[in-house]
Amino acid sequence: MSDLTHLSLRKLRRLMISGEVRPEEVTAAFLARAEARNSCDLSYVSIGAEHALSRAGMVEQAGALGRLAGIPFSCKDVFDTVTLPTTAGSRVMHDYRPLRDARALQRLEAAGAILLGKNNLHEFCYGITGANPIFGTPANPHDPGRLAGGSSSGSAVAVANRTAMFALGTDTGGSVRVPASLCGLVGFKPTRGQISLKGVVPFCWSLDHVGILARSCGDATEVFLAVREADEAILAANADHAERGNSLHGLRIGVPRGAYLENVASDIALRVQQLIAECRRLGAHIVEVVMPDATHVRTASLAVQLVEAFAWHRTNLQRRFDLYGEDVREGLLQGQFILAEHYVQALRLIAAKQAEVSERLKDIDVLMTPTTPVVAPELDQRRVTLAGVEVPVGNALSHFTCLFNLTGHPALSVPIGRDGDGLPVGLQLIGAHHRDTKLLSIGTALERAGLAGWIEPNDEMDDGVCMAPTRSEQRELHTH
Amino acid sequence: MSDLTHLSLRKLRRLMISGEVRPEEVTAAFLARAEARNSCDLSYVSIGAEHALSRAGMVEQAGALGRLAGIPFSCKDVFDTVTLPTTAGSRVMHDYRPLRDARALQRLEAAGAILLGKNNLHEFCYGITGANPIFGTPANPHDPGRLAGGSSSGSAVAVANRTAMFALGTDTGGSVRVPASLCGLVGFKPTRGQISLKGVVPFCWSLDHVGILARSCGDATEVFLAVREADEAILAANADHAERGNSLHGLRIGVPRGAYLENVASDIALRVQQLIAECRRLGAHIVEVVMPDATHVRTASLAVQLVEAFAWHRTNLQRRFDLYGEDVREGLLQGQFILAEHYVQALRLIAAKQAEVSERLKDIDVLMTPTTPVVAPELDQRRVTLAGVEVPVGNALSHFTCLFNLTGHPALSVPIGRDGDGLPVGLQLIGAHHRDTKLLSIGTALERAGLAGWIEPNDEMDDGVCMAPTRSEQRELHTH
Repeated sequence: MSDLTHLSLRKLRRLMISGEVRPEEVTAAFLARAEARNSCDLSYVSIGAEHALSRAGMVEQAGALGRLAGIPFSCKDVFDTVTLPTTAGSRVMHDYRPLRDARALQRLEAAGAILLGKNNLHEFCYGITGANPIFGTPANPHDPGRLAGGSSSGSAVAVANRTAMFALGTDTGGSVRVPASLCGLVGFKPTRGQISLKGVVPFCWSLDHVGILARSCGDATEVFLAVREADEAILAANADHAERGNSLHGLRIGVPRGAYLENVASDIALRVQQLIAECRRLGAHIVEVVMPDATHVRTASLAVQLVEAFAWHRTNLQRRFDLYGEDVREGLLQGQFILAEHYVQALRLIAAKQAEVSERLKDIDVLMTPTTPVVAPELDQRRVTLAGVEVPVGNALSHFTCLFNLTGHPALSVPIGRDGDGLPVGLQLIGAHHRDTKLLSIGTALERAGLAGWIEPNDEMDDGVCMAPTRSEQRELHTH
Repeated sequence: MSDLTHLSLRKLRRLMISGEVRPEEVTAAFLARAEARNSCDLSYVSIGAEHALSRAGMVEQAGALGRLAGIPFSCKDVFDTVTLPTTAGSRVMHDYRPLRDARALQRLEAAGAILLGKNNLHEFCYGITGANPIFGTPANPHDPGRLAGGSSSGSAVAVANRTAMFALGTDTGGSVRVPASLCGLVGFKPTRGQISLKGVVPFCWSLDHVGILARSCGDATEVFLAVREADEAILAANADHAERGNSLHGLRIGVPRGAYLENVASDIALRVQQLIAECRRLGAHIVEVVMPDATHVRTASLAVQLVEAFAWHRTNLQRRFDLYGEDVREGLLQGQFILAEHYVQALRLIAAKQAEVSERLKDIDVLMTPTTPVVAPELDQRRVTLAGVEVPVGNALSHFTCLFNLTGHPALSVPIGRDGDGLPVGLQLIGAHHRDTKLLSIGTALERAGLAGWIEPNDEMDDGVCMAPTRSEQRELHTH
């Protein structure tokens, strides 16, 4: 049975269409694996086995039609569901009962996908580390002493550990791409608005994006085509770029000029440079790009996040102060002191950056950067050193990703190998607005050329041993 | 010559096409009138006679093609121009030299229209009364002791006094519709985004709209068709509603239910009720509409205005504090104390109101309200009494208009007669998003049925007497 969890999405679909494998069998295989591993990897907040099996039965009876018919998936626990609780990783939401499923889930279920359960996350998506004192912090599948990244931590771990075929997450500063990079997966944040945020507990509505975590760009493409909002005008305007060629030959790849990669860990810089060299060898044109000035990008991002998050949380902060985790509560409270002038200046800076990045993307097919400047940090690590300067872990992890939440451009992280310690390294690809399928096809081309691809964790559970710290050990970590 | 200024836009076009009248003759007639009256009506900050005549000559040589070929117009002095200064009604902008004309002006000039000059306004569009201590306050053409309304004061006065065939203004809370109503004209604020704000000195970019002042809905329609941004997708989606029928028969007219008209001056309420009755008699269906709760609408509008205006003016407030008029400066400084939370809550309330008004407009063709609850106030009036309660003049004047800047719906003011003192009364028509031409056609139908139409001022200048207060008399008024 467990072999089923190794197959690609399309392969699994073919087996179900031909009748060699039944949808219920597939769902049962993933469910068994999820239930066995969850006490150790903490990737699920809730698992809805009964509902999932019954849905799989219905899909089977209906002839397994639909692009994702019978494909089991999970979602970050910020997507509204009627059948399972929606916690947002917090105790604050304990009595929240949405009346309908989030729109993105409705679309996936209409395509036949089977929701297995809901994934652990950084409380209210507040951080990029994935640390969660309430539901525990999912450990990195490649090293149980290290962070999986966040805030879509559980979603990444579920896909990495093959307890879901794919997962939906959300990404406000890198929260899909960063855990994907740290866990050796594909993480895709489409053009802003391409996947509906309706029925998703917001963190910051100006920057929030729904994203996809998957084992390959091929899998992610199938999911994206099923879940996206198909705006006919947008599709028509970008039809020339929607075809999915899979060749690197003739591709115009932009790479940042100058000191942009100076503060990147040497193993990561090396892997990215090797990949660029390989692309050139295979016929791609490498174009040096002067990146927009990033001086105030983090400040602008933070101003917008803190203000919008505070506006959303104000009532709960008054009524349920004690139910928040301490770190998240302290962070949220900062939002009350920010002046409106600063917020609108941040929005104006964002509009300027959007125009600048779009300008850079006019003459190239794709821009490439590392996804993160460091590999997965240790669980109790608070600061990392970049080019000799100590910075908070969170700032380091979102260093290359947060700009593209401000600008709304589609951005994809693909795994391009390991560093010297065997930890995954991710490459970020950025495309022009609404060239989402083109961006995915470039990722697929890298995979076909053997330059990118899923990095499978050592399956320590096969020995029945859980290497990750227990919840009480984790509480220890959090009190430091 | 002066007869030319009395003709409708289409009639004037026909005479120029047939060669009976030359474009230079038309421009010269309006210029002569503008120059003769400006020292009295203060409607122009600058007049560009030479440039206008040379443009008219060029239009003539090119065969007077283009929808507005040879039609003289003016614009509020917030539209960037290369040939004339752009003051925004303030001393602060004395060294401002834009490099190109505002996009809306470019479109009008491409259609052959002739810019005569730039109109006086409330400094930086800050108020609805049109009071301006620097360039003087344009008096109401129907009573020199009364306000013309603002902030597009000079634009309304120029069209009322036939020193421009039409004018562009801007409308952030009613700044086109209110002066149109007070001066007996048509004022049209199209769907947000339909006329470009590019190259317009902003007051508040979330609520600013460019609008049109004209003597009839027919004139306004010609201008709108030339100046609007033609988005093919929007035009196609609304094609069913774009046809310009001119009958009231079968029209579904929404009127506010309940206490909505309680605080309206009795003469205005009476005129509106008579008009509704006439529409019913002519075959329209009158539908009572429960209006959205307006409790926080003014607060939300003010929060957004103060914050965005302050953000734009901050540098000038620091460097050129003394160049601002005192009232505007004191107002702008309030923006610095508003918290970001309040600003985003205002934006959220605005989004909710937008949805509510759109919902109301689903089952009707047009919503009708008075444009203002009072006729033109006296020049030194600070407060008016509505239903026994004293309120500031500005709050009263924008009472019915400011909601539709928040929601972005097209709104049109048409003159529907005079009150007992002979002062013009305006009716506001509101339509669904992007049903701009439909809304104008309903206005035209009212005109054809004799229910609405330009209210011509007594032309006291024909006796060579200026009844308006002089500038020094006005300064007296401002110091009270």
